[in-house]
Amino acid sequence: KDNYRIAVVHGDGIGPEVAGAALSLLQAGVQAGTLQFEEYPAGATHFLETGDSFPASSFEGCRAADAILHGAAGIPGVVHPDGTEAGLDFTLQLRFKLDLFANVRPIKLYKGVPSPLGRPGAIDYVIVRENSEGLYAARGAGALLREEVAVDTLVQTRKGIERIVRFAFELARTRNGSPKDGRRRVTCCDKANVLRTYAFFRAVFDEVAKDYPDIEAEHVLVDAMTVHLVNKPSHFDVIVTENMFGDIISDLGAATVGGMGMAPSEEVGDGVGFFQASHGSAPDIAGKGLANPYGTILASILMLRRLDQRYRDSRLRLGADRIEAAVRTGLEDASLRTRDIGGHATTDQVVDALMKLL
Amino acid sequence: KDNYRIAVVHGDGIGPEVAGAALSLLQAGVQAGTLQFEEYPAGATHFLETGDSFPASSFEGCRAADAILHGAAGIPGVVHPDGTEAGLDFTLQLRFKLDLFANVRPIKLYKGVPSPLGRPGAIDYVIVRENSEGLYAARGAGALLREEVAVDTLVQTRKGIERIVRFAFELARTRNGSPKDGRRRVTCCDKANVLRTYAFFRAVFDEVAKDYPDIEAEHVLVDAMTVHLVNKPSHFDVIVTENMFGDIISDLGAATVGGMGMAPSEEVGDGVGFFQASHGSAPDIAGKGLANPYGTILASILMLRRLDQRYRDSRLRLGADRIEAAVRTGLEDASLRTRDIGGHATTDQVVDALMKLL
Ligand SMILES: CC(C)[C@H](C(=O)O)[C@@H](O)C(=O)O
Ligand SMILES: CC(C)[C@H](C(=O)O)[C@@H](O)C(=O)O
Repeated sequence: KDNYRIAVVHGDGIGPEVAGAALSLLQAGVQAGTLQFEEYPAGATHFLETGDSFPASSFEGCRAADAILHGAAGIPGVVHPDGTEAGLDFTLQLRFKLDLFANVRPIKLYKGVPSPLGRPGAIDYVIVRENSEGLYAARGAGALLREEVAVDTLVQTRKGIERIVRFAFELARTRNGSPKDGRRRVTCCDKANVLRTYAFFRAVFDEVAKDYPDIEAEHVLVDAMTVHLVNKPSHFDVIVTENMFGDIISDLGAATVGGMGMAPSEEVGDGVGFFQASHGSAPDIAGKGLANPYGTILASILMLRRLDQRYRDSRLRLGADRIEAAVRTGLEDASLRTRDIGGHATTDQVVDALMKLL
Repeated sequence: KDNYRIAVVHGDGIGPEVAGAALSLLQAGVQAGTLQFEEYPAGATHFLETGDSFPASSFEGCRAADAILHGAAGIPGVVHPDGTEAGLDFTLQLRFKLDLFANVRPIKLYKGVPSPLGRPGAIDYVIVRENSEGLYAARGAGALLREEVAVDTLVQTRKGIERIVRFAFELARTRNGSPKDGRRRVTCCDKANVLRTYAFFRAVFDEVAKDYPDIEAEHVLVDAMTVHLVNKPSHFDVIVTENMFGDIISDLGAATVGGMGMAPSEEVGDGVGFFQASHGSAPDIAGKGLANPYGTILASILMLRRLDQRYRDSRLRLGADRIEAAVRTGLEDASLRTRDIGGHATTDQVVDALMKLL
């Protein structure tokens, strides 16, 4: 393949700032001509301007691309009649219309980044969040009767569970980084003791696990999981879980490694992939130069690696390695940390310095 | 009222050890004749012996009592045909049959107890978990079609939301302890941006909040909540949330104040209340004398205070104050901490010492 089409959506709040940062690094770090960027509008700001949060033309552009790079979307209070947020249509429609069934969220504590945990130890695991069903199957579609009863539905299918669990085991086989005790391990996070959907999730997990005898398989209830992620994060390697639980525990994981600004997110299916930081649009600090660009830069590294995995292209691999090296060096330098990770640097200062490091 | 009938259910695993500890302290700390204990069987062990996890006679005994004190229930692997745990019938049936709609979980960091957070600050908030509907409405009742699709339902009613939100605001008005900045505050934890049921929860919360202009009302999305509970726990005063979210964030809260062994739980409706530690039955350490009895002892203090609130009886109030003073002194003494909170004491050593302190 000569080059890769990257659909870029800046979105709301700090979205343009962090997306811009990642673009600068991609342009400087990856051999010229490899990536081709196309910008598309979407999000709450666009909704306020046009009444449409995600134009069909933007959707088509995203669908036709090799990867989608996103800043951040959503403005609290900009909502649909049912109370859900308009700016999130972009993310949710991409997920469901493109069947991006795996949401991959690496949780890694980089040297130099402060953790709120007293003794964090080495933290380096990945949360694989089922991204196409679960409680999110009901998004914006639940029933509300006479303003008296509201209902949403949690749906799990065998197909959906099988493919996400398989994805998690394959990842455990191939990924760099391993838990403290050196064992390859996939942890199923559920609530099988109370709910049938989760008991089903666990049962299918157990079946699939049999195909991976080289990898340890274990179960942890979601409530207990929050305790372990705080008390023994080094234990974990790959965690696989239902959509809603994945949303919750991946933010908790992010908190332990420096916060939402340090947490990249990758959403993949069989075609195009969708890459962004896990954080929101942070309207309170938008335009002030305070946004932490590392999350989106880390997401763009995930993007290069995923494209390389599919197309075997050393330009992508080299670009990813170079940008990652710059990020590592940057984070170790106190003067290149933004406010949220204990520093004073502005977004631009970080980006300028990382570009020099490249 | 001359005396109060306390139904005691020991349950499984470490249940008998921690329930026994609480009973010893209640007997020593509360004026003789005030409390009258009656024991009833229930749980996974009882299920294995008799095929019945919660005999009707036990249920009737519990229902007729003034309060129920529980050790812990459940043995992993002892499950119903649908994969959910048999030992949990006790807890779940009490909740739903007795309409114990409010699950109150104080999260408090006691002096001497180590927190996994590097700088925990003062932690002293209460999670009010809606306990009668939400995703738990589907417990054990979801559909499973041809081993291909599993469905559970999240149901929220206006009545259910109103009463739990009102409960939270009333608690914020009256409770001891207040957040760092001294403001009385109720935080609604939901996922209103994506799901209609939670948007409804939030809308009803906003309505009820208008009746409490003296108390600050705020919203935090559940994913962001996990970050805040780690990064700024001192901010919180009272948090109110849906059943499943309450299950998850209350364990996270417990983790920050020393773990599940330090987290009491109170479940109340209009009649009898149900008191236990938030932890499970920990079969791995059962019978070894390693169980942390503080959680159940703290739960018994909640019990005395709730009964006193209803019946205004100084014997209960005095008993609660005395036992709490012993707990505080005990926790400050390194030799009276169990293994899970950084010490070496056995359950019996803690109980003996606290009895002497009384
Ligand atoms: C923005 C929102 C739709 C989204 C989610 O809830 O999945 C976000 O919290 C995330 O984790 O990607
Ligand atoms: C034991 C189980 C039914 C229970 C729950 O899920 O509610 C427990 O985790 C709790 O928090 O009380």
